[in-house]
Amino acid sequence: MGVSKKQVRVGMIGYKFMGKAHSHAYRDLPFFFDTDVVPVQQALAGRDREGVEQAATQWGWASTETDWRRLLEREDIDLIDIVTPNHLHAEMAIAAAEAGKHVICEKPLAMSVDEARRMVEAVQKAGTVHMLCHNYRFAPAVQFAKKLIEEGRLGRIYHIRGQYLQDWIMDPQFPLVWRLRKEVTGSGALGDVGAHILDLARFLVGEFQEVSGMMETFIRERPLGEMSGGLNARAEAGNRGEVDVDDAAVFMARFENGALGVFEATRFAGGNRNGNRFEINGEKGSIRWDLENMNNLEVYLEEDEPGLQGFRTINCTEEHHPYGAAYWPSGHIIGYEHTFINLFSELMKGIADGSSPAPNFEDGLRNQLVLAAVEKSSRSGQWIKVSDLNPVTRR
Amino acid sequence: MGVSKKQVRVGMIGYKFMGKAHSHAYRDLPFFFDTDVVPVQQALAGRDREGVEQAATQWGWASTETDWRRLLEREDIDLIDIVTPNHLHAEMAIAAAEAGKHVICEKPLAMSVDEARRMVEAVQKAGTVHMLCHNYRFAPAVQFAKKLIEEGRLGRIYHIRGQYLQDWIMDPQFPLVWRLRKEVTGSGALGDVGAHILDLARFLVGEFQEVSGMMETFIRERPLGEMSGGLNARAEAGNRGEVDVDDAAVFMARFENGALGVFEATRFAGGNRNGNRFEINGEKGSIRWDLENMNNLEVYLEEDEPGLQGFRTINCTEEHHPYGAAYWPSGHIIGYEHTFINLFSELMKGIADGSSPAPNFEDGLRNQLVLAAVEKSSRSGQWIKVSDLNPVTRR
Amino acid sequence: MGVSKKQVRVGMIGYKFMGKAHSHAYRDLPFFFDTDVVPVQQALAGRDREGVEQAATQWGWASTETDWRRLLEREDIDLIDIVTPNHLHAEMAIAAAEAGKHVICEKPLAMSVDEARRMVEAVQKAGTVHMLCHNYRFAPAVQFAKKLIEEGRLGRIYHIRGQYLQDWIMDPQFPLVWRLRKEVTGSGALGDVGAHILDLARFLVGEFQEVSGMMETFIRERPLGEMSGGLNARAEAGNRGEVDVDDAAVFMARFENGALGVFEATRFAGGNRNGNRFEINGEKGSIRWDLENMNNLEVYLEEDEPGLQGFRTINCTEEHHPYGAAYWPSGHIIGYEHTFINLFSELMKGIADGSSPAPNFEDGLRNQLVLAAVEKSSRSGQWIKVSDLNPVTRR
Amino acid sequence: MGVSKKQVRVGMIGYKFMGKAHSHAYRDLPFFFDTDVVPVQQALAGRDREGVEQAATQWGWASTETDWRRLLEREDIDLIDIVTPNHLHAEMAIAAAEAGKHVICEKPLAMSVDEARRMVEAVQKAGTVHMLCHNYRFAPAVQFAKKLIEEGRLGRIYHIRGQYLQDWIMDPQFPLVWRLRKEVTGSGALGDVGAHILDLARFLVGEFQEVSGMMETFIRERPLGEMSGGLNARAEAGNRGEVDVDDAAVFMARFENGALGVFEATRFAGGNRNGNRFEINGEKGSIRWDLENMNNLEVYLEEDEPGLQGFRTINCTEEHHPYGAAYWPSGHIIGYEHTFINLFSELMKGIADGSSPAPNFEDGLRNQLVLAAVEKSSRSGQWIKVSDLNPVTRR
Repeated sequence: MGVSKKQVRVGMIGYKFMGKAHSHAYRDLPFFFDTDVVPVQQALAGRDREGVEQAATQWGWASTETDWRRLLEREDIDLIDIVTPNHLHAEMAIAAAEAGKHVICEKPLAMSVDEARRMVEAVQKAGTVHMLCHNYRFAPAVQFAKKLIEEGRLGRIYHIRGQYLQDWIMDPQFPLVWRLRKEVTGSGALGDVGAHILDLARFLVGEFQEVSGMMETFIRERPLGEMSGGLNARAEAGNRGEVDVDDAAVFMARFENGALGVFEATRFAGGNRNGNRFEINGEKGSIRWDLENMNNLEVYLEEDEPGLQGFRTINCTEEHHPYGAAYWPSGHIIGYEHTFINLFSELMKGIADGSSPAPNFEDGLRNQLVLAAVEKSSRSGQWIKVSDLNPVTRR
Repeated sequence: MGVSKKQVRVGMIGYKFMGKAHSHAYRDLPFFFDTDVVPVQQALAGRDREGVEQAATQWGWASTETDWRRLLEREDIDLIDIVTPNHLHAEMAIAAAEAGKHVICEKPLAMSVDEARRMVEAVQKAGTVHMLCHNYRFAPAVQFAKKLIEEGRLGRIYHIRGQYLQDWIMDPQFPLVWRLRKEVTGSGALGDVGAHILDLARFLVGEFQEVSGMMETFIRERPLGEMSGGLNARAEAGNRGEVDVDDAAVFMARFENGALGVFEATRFAGGNRNGNRFEINGEKGSIRWDLENMNNLEVYLEEDEPGLQGFRTINCTEEHHPYGAAYWPSGHIIGYEHTFINLFSELMKGIADGSSPAPNFEDGLRNQLVLAAVEKSSRSGQWIKVSDLNPVTRR
Repeated sequence: MGVSKKQVRVGMIGYKFMGKAHSHAYRDLPFFFDTDVVPVQQALAGRDREGVEQAATQWGWASTETDWRRLLEREDIDLIDIVTPNHLHAEMAIAAAEAGKHVICEKPLAMSVDEARRMVEAVQKAGTVHMLCHNYRFAPAVQFAKKLIEEGRLGRIYHIRGQYLQDWIMDPQFPLVWRLRKEVTGSGALGDVGAHILDLARFLVGEFQEVSGMMETFIRERPLGEMSGGLNARAEAGNRGEVDVDDAAVFMARFENGALGVFEATRFAGGNRNGNRFEINGEKGSIRWDLENMNNLEVYLEEDEPGLQGFRTINCTEEHHPYGAAYWPSGHIIGYEHTFINLFSELMKGIADGSSPAPNFEDGLRNQLVLAAVEKSSRSGQWIKVSDLNPVTRR
Repeated sequence: MGVSKKQVRVGMIGYKFMGKAHSHAYRDLPFFFDTDVVPVQQALAGRDREGVEQAATQWGWASTETDWRRLLEREDIDLIDIVTPNHLHAEMAIAAAEAGKHVICEKPLAMSVDEARRMVEAVQKAGTVHMLCHNYRFAPAVQFAKKLIEEGRLGRIYHIRGQYLQDWIMDPQFPLVWRLRKEVTGSGALGDVGAHILDLARFLVGEFQEVSGMMETFIRERPLGEMSGGLNARAEAGNRGEVDVDDAAVFMARFENGALGVFEATRFAGGNRNGNRFEINGEKGSIRWDLENMNNLEVYLEEDEPGLQGFRTINCTEEHHPYGAAYWPSGHIIGYEHTFINLFSELMKGIADGSSPAPNFEDGLRNQLVLAAVEKSSRSGQWIKVSDLNPVTRR
């Protein structure tokens, strides 16, 4: 289908959880959106031949590579999609940009501010389109929240409280998977789910000015096991290793616009399978959102008449809501995977007109600066100004 | 992908809202499920050439027909999928069965018990696989509810209250679309959304014994307009026509197992975009479900220790829940469209082994008998025994 | 306190659960409300001397009687409050009226329409003030719902669904208390909790025109035991008796204004300790209420701007809400007992100006007519017109 | 009533919002609780004769004083209850103790750690009973949470997030009432509502080890107006004054047991009339509570079987719940005022046996230390160890 449309031929590196989510988004995008350019699942790269071929067959990729650098050499690839563990992002993204490819990368952008800055420089130099996969921005309810804020419906923002609460590693016998190893992941809950709430805060409230944080590792030793595993990773008997990343990170923030923020990223909040939530209080109204009921936005408007004031539960599935027209009639909810489809629809628009839609690598760098500030603050016990970590970029 | 798998080549008739939902399900099924047979979107039929071709291009159908009977003649079609207005179901399904095709049909099965019975006879005679699209059975939370009931976790069932509340035609200026015309749709809210709650009740509680109902048309005249339209249909100026179907249907029931039921299907419940909900109370526990938060099931278990008794809100997205393993990690919700993917995965299994998974045409007939009993009761003001309408089929 | 105020000296008959609720309301009324007349807890009557004296001491009654008729003879009693089992209401209320006393009676008013009619005639003849204790009308959220409806904020009413779901007798070993014996209570769930939802429906929607109902007794035999007991009544070993009242009652209704109603009263809905709930859908809006979160009213207004439509959760504790100014600042909730205090504040106003505030005995009669219609319908399987049961009163 | 019981004759100083709450609790206590000693509302003190007499009449106090010191001289007063603005607590409480009276004081205990310490010393020296009015501990759901934690049902505590969100001063034209003046109130949101969440955290999780906080005043100037006013205080035209207390306070904490805490106290969270909420995550389970639905406790237990795990909503109104037996049958909720009744029932027990029930003045001192640490941290930008502020008391 879409035969007469311009195609963006994608080469994706990695094929675990995020590989599945991205593959599905490429598959479904043309079904729901009428973009000028459409993605083609051209090639999937992964080191293990059997694994990558099985994934390609299941998810609809036309070819495979076992050396990701081969994707950069192929002329039939326009866009490199990086869904590998975090320690590989910088090398791959920089190489992709240098090869003249558009790049989309999973979050967090990098292992450090320095890496992130080099990535930004690489895409700026190459002039290719770049984007970062903070998919939760693209939940219709979150986009609608953004719209309300931009229209001034909340007025001046006073508060944001953001939490990303999970519980998948609470069992002390859960093994030392890659997301618990600093050399591969950079940080723990902070970089993984904390990066998401930071991005939502930047998107909805604005830039961070300074932060004060603390980080904690509750379970300091775990059995070794399925290194590349996710939620259901199996532990091996016997050997154990040290957990060198944070199980939880808590931080306060002041924003440039004077708002106060308080954030919590943890994998030790039992019963919260995927509790990505925020509340924002402004001069004229408040909003609340929770990923586990992601189609709903709760909105309080001070302008409502006395006696009739209260939070409204809005099912953001109408044609009046962002991306609402692409899917089903009102009240027919969408799910997690659609955040990626929506995100990729923006990427396609960016590639069509040569722009890099937010969140892009510059957003990734700004996010990384805040993550670094939280880590630094956590070590020093001091408030850290985000600008102090970034003398060059900040104006 | 799936090149070595047996293919089921689908010919679908109709391309409106349900056409989109089914097309998407065929597209995504092989991505999420590893079924032995896989669907192929072979041909799409519709009377308007331009419309059907545009839909085929958007949704990935390989060919089109403007005469649905052509699909029956084509040897490269194994399964006929009927997503047309209700008055066409019987003719198409019977012809499809007679042509030796498997058949899947949108609900309600037919315009009358007589039609439904002839459809059942046709598929039985043909020996082909048949299924009916009561997709809400296939929400993971509903399947999980079924599992709990089958395991006896609720004990003897005392009560079910089911509601399907919508509000899309409350505006008296909303036009007289096909769903408001008896000759095309058979009945109004009753056959459209009432059929769904009936199906859920039969699935979860058991067979209906007798019913007493009432039906009402609140707005008896409407502007003419976009006949084939859905939620956003436009009215024409000037001409008006009579609404000859129900805006709302309310009915009570006794089930064969002694449970009491109370049901309400309406398109006049403002604020309820898609409020398909049920509550079931049994001897040992209760459950509650609401389509607008369809991933959640609320469960109360009397066996819980005193003081700790209360409804649990279970996000049915875990590997422990039906279809949970096919999608995303715990807490990453799915949406409306996945109910169809799950349903079609069962159809594929049925075609693989020659069985007709529930809900099939026999379920459709039983559903139609209850719908007919409600209508008859509504006219007569009497309780109607379902078996009185069906001397042949009932034992 | 209130020394200069006119006093209404109360004689109350009965001292179980309702006796406690009423006693407390008399005690607290002058604290929260500045009514022109104030109640004085003058005398408590009960057959068991020890029991009545203990209750009087605990709850602040100045004197006791073991023969309720003595209260009627006492000149220092202005108001008779009847909180006895249902079979005693008529005799006591009629005698009280004949003795020239004001009367307030627990619901349901009577055992039969005939009794209710004689009670109405007695108070009308006596010219004393009368009231009926449908306390849930006096939850601020319910009063606020009434206000919205009266102001036309919902427009024409299309639907009401009312449920009173309880679970306190689900255990088959729970004994045969008075509320399960027809000769004492009249009916089971219907007259006890069904009467409440009927009253709320009459209050909010209007008069019933016709009903169709069914009633069921799930557990037909129970151990004998603490006859006068409530939730924690103890069963005796050995003897068992027949349950001759309904465990559940379900009914449909048409209202005089064309609205459709569906109602359910049951003591077999596990997990619902006190689930008195209603939803009302009108032309311009909808409301929802649940006694278990009784301070909240959910309100949907069709006039809200597109995209921002959704149910608002309103905590009806503000000065803008009925009775809100009497208690605490916004957001400081009140509870079950305050519904009685509010009700008695209206009774005090009625006594001050010689009127009988709704719901009064006439409301009780109308309620009884609907209850009787449901019972008759349940026996006959026919729809019953409420007016057919009441040739005299109905105009 | 209670004629044969020992009486505690109360003299209360102050008669605004808290005066009403305390008066009501004394009034209702004997109705609901069968304590060995019962309170008698002996005397109410306030500077304005007319005001204090009117309050005494309305709320049932037997006598009045315009000089609070007179209460200390009266031999018919056993207990002094201090419900004045914060800057008067220390002087009054110390004088009361020195006069040999039992003392109960509103929170926060004092204006400073030093004041609090002197108050503790005074009551210790006097040997009288002392208590502090952190009433929210006494919501049944909170007491039930405490019970679950003490029984080890949550295991080791990892996280607490506590918020007290209000919105009553968001209007910049709201006047400069006493709660916004440092000399009278000590601090703003921190000492007022922050003190409550601190107390709940100490009660449920344990002692604070160190904190890092920030405080903010969003509206720095306000009209002068009704100094002693509450929510509905009126502003005067013309003169304006500076707000010298915090509108919001945010802080992080480490507890002695290793738990992490994050807290937020604000009066600028629109739509949250009284949003006192906490969530606690432990090794084996989690709990959530919200004052606006204060009867409910949400509980997650990891031990629940897979697939059936989820937060239970428990209506803590059963006889199985703390204070449940004192009030109404299950599902009949109580409200804000009952937290005081429950608290005073503990005070009566304390007076009966000569102990000072928690929270008492020592708890007040510990609370004050944390408040002081938050303030100091907020000024210095450093983490502050609570023990550093209290070299004497801490062991």
